[in-house]
Amino acid sequence: MLGIDPGLTRCGVGVVDVEPDRSGRLVHVGVIRSGSDMPLPERLATIAAGIRAVLTEHRPDVVAVERVFAQHNVRTVMGTAQASGVALLLAAEHGLPAETHTPSEVKAAITGYGAADKRQVQTMVARVLRLDALPQPADAADALALALCHAWRSGGSTGGQGSTPLTPAQRAWADAERLVRSSR
Amino acid sequence: MLGIDPGLTRCGVGVVDVEPDRSGRLVHVGVIRSGSDMPLPERLATIAAGIRAVLTEHRPDVVAVERVFAQHNVRTVMGTAQASGVALLLAAEHGLPAETHTPSEVKAAITGYGAADKRQVQTMVARVLRLDALPQPADAADALALALCHAWRSGGSTGGQGSTPLTPAQRAWADAERLVRSSR
Repeated sequence: MLGIDPGLTRCGVGVVDVEPDRSGRLVHVGVIRSGSDMPLPERLATIAAGIRAVLTEHRPDVVAVERVFAQHNVRTVMGTAQASGVALLLAAEHGLPAETHTPSEVKAAITGYGAADKRQVQTMVARVLRLDALPQPADAADALALALCHAWRSGGSTGGQGSTPLTPAQRAWADAERLVRSSR
Repeated sequence: MLGIDPGLTRCGVGVVDVEPDRSGRLVHVGVIRSGSDMPLPERLATIAAGIRAVLTEHRPDVVAVERVFAQHNVRTVMGTAQASGVALLLAAEHGLPAETHTPSEVKAAITGYGAADKRQVQTMVARVLRLDALPQPADAADALALALCHAWRSGGSTGGQGSTPLTPAQRAWADAERLVRSSR
């Protein structure tokens, strides 16, 4: 499972193996960077070359790409959308199914809480993949979270989205969230 | 000169030969379509295949792509941005310089008026390229206008943008616009 957190300056890529019991193993994580001083076409070509290298070396079965929304910074979001277009194109050209997930879907799947912050996502990704340190930078953690999210949502249950059982990690976070809320 | 008006449902492509005297000749015009019922990655792959076919057959020296802005319809603009990312990537991968122009830059270059409507752009494109009929649909005309705009802006003058001399067509439109405005 390959997760891609698209971006022009930093594009996170994370590959995980996910077992039927929903446990996960880190295969590869990295960030493809392109300088803002490069012309846009060359930035996109740099991103594409990095994604192709991961596809060729790790041969994932499925690709998950973060869905882009219009946000505050219009300039950034356009570059992000262009990078996501490149990521989705490469998946199709490698004959791989590709799906998009919103940031809140990913956060909810990983932490049990759709508005989790970056640190919470990094912490849960490290826990699920049994990493010694938090995956850095956040774009790398987001790519891994995306890959885990997609694996769990697509393979973990035959029921609808609402009936997908929580992982132990999700249950722990959901419980913690409830505790924090009830104590406010 | 290849102009690309990016879009998922309709992606306009237009190839023109432009002489040093700024006259233009139509080489190819078309619209690449992808159905909204197709998965997004396959739509982008369809667009990419269509652009690659034009690059291979007509071997342009330069590519011009319409610049995308966040507009009213956020859903549409994201798909347009993704298609533009694919177009810019393909230009880079074919070793071609690629530039973006805003719709108003294109309209101003073609008609002398940055807020020209689609019909005015189609009319001027047909006149410059000496076509018997208006190029259809508007996406095709926009792609041709983009190619002409880029050729004129980049090759027509060594001066800055502000000092680029108007073409006869631009002068005619600018005069007409002034007339219309002064008579209001």
